[in-house]
Amino acid sequence: MATYLEDYAEGETYEFGRYAFTEQNIIAFAREFDPQAFHVDPQAAAAGPFGGLVASGFHTLSAMMRLLVDHFISPEASLGSPGMGEIRWLAPVRPGDVLGARLTVTERRLSRSRPDRGALVQFIEMVNQDGTVVMTAVGTGFYRRRPRED
Amino acid sequence: MATYLEDYAEGETYEFGRYAFTEQNIIAFAREFDPQAFHVDPQAAAAGPFGGLVASGFHTLSAMMRLLVDHFISPEASLGSPGMGEIRWLAPVRPGDVLGARLTVTERRLSRSRPDRGALVQFIEMVNQDGTVVMTAVGTGFYRRRPRED
Repeated sequence: MATYLEDYAEGETYEFGRYAFTEQNIIAFAREFDPQAFHVDPQAAAAGPFGGLVASGFHTLSAMMRLLVDHFISPEASLGSPGMGEIRWLAPVRPGDVLGARLTVTERRLSRSRPDRGALVQFIEMVNQDGTVVMTAVGTGFYRRRPRED
Repeated sequence: MATYLEDYAEGETYEFGRYAFTEQNIIAFAREFDPQAFHVDPQAAAAGPFGGLVASGFHTLSAMMRLLVDHFISPEASLGSPGMGEIRWLAPVRPGDVLGARLTVTERRLSRSRPDRGALVQFIEMVNQDGTVVMTAVGTGFYRRRPRED
């Protein structure tokens, strides 16, 4: 059965997904989008501010989105997102780290102008294999409401 | 000459860079990180909420970071970022769009606890070839201060 706005519960927390960071995918992402030495050059990174290679924060953010698409966002109902806020990179993400997502629906609201849709506000934590929260963010998603059967 | 915290002026606006979105790179990014139909499937996207293929917001965000690394962030002084906020995806980004960055330093402050560094707060706009602002965000970056010559 398709999932619509009504199927997500305000206050509910969902945990899902696994994204594995490797030296290879950290460097590949960073070469394309964030080619700073501590993201692309293990030798230089060892002497740098993080004492070793770390993933770009934008890689962690993109990995979060992948987990949401695979496990949380309904393909039937998704209408995109107007924005995202309060991104905090709290701890380095290093080769070998495996992150999962913990998502809490902090608000579910209906659109005032368009009765076929609404929005979810979500507090998202990315958590590594040791239980350390490495990133948090607040995202908003637009979703279709369940079609009425008239 | 290396660039340090002192070389960025509060209140100054910088414009730089060009990132070209193509159907190919939009789909490649989205297959890896945001495989929703309107980002990966031109046919399905035509019937979807954006009336055609659009770039993932995380692709636009990552492209912004690439422009910052290439044109704004000092490799000698960069110490990473604690976070980012107020990301607003204001207009769709489509194949053929070319985005540039416009960045205003809204605040430059010194660290209270570590006299060798400080932070810049930046308001960043991504602007397309028609002058439309497609995304805005607020980012913070940590930078080394110019080393003292004693």
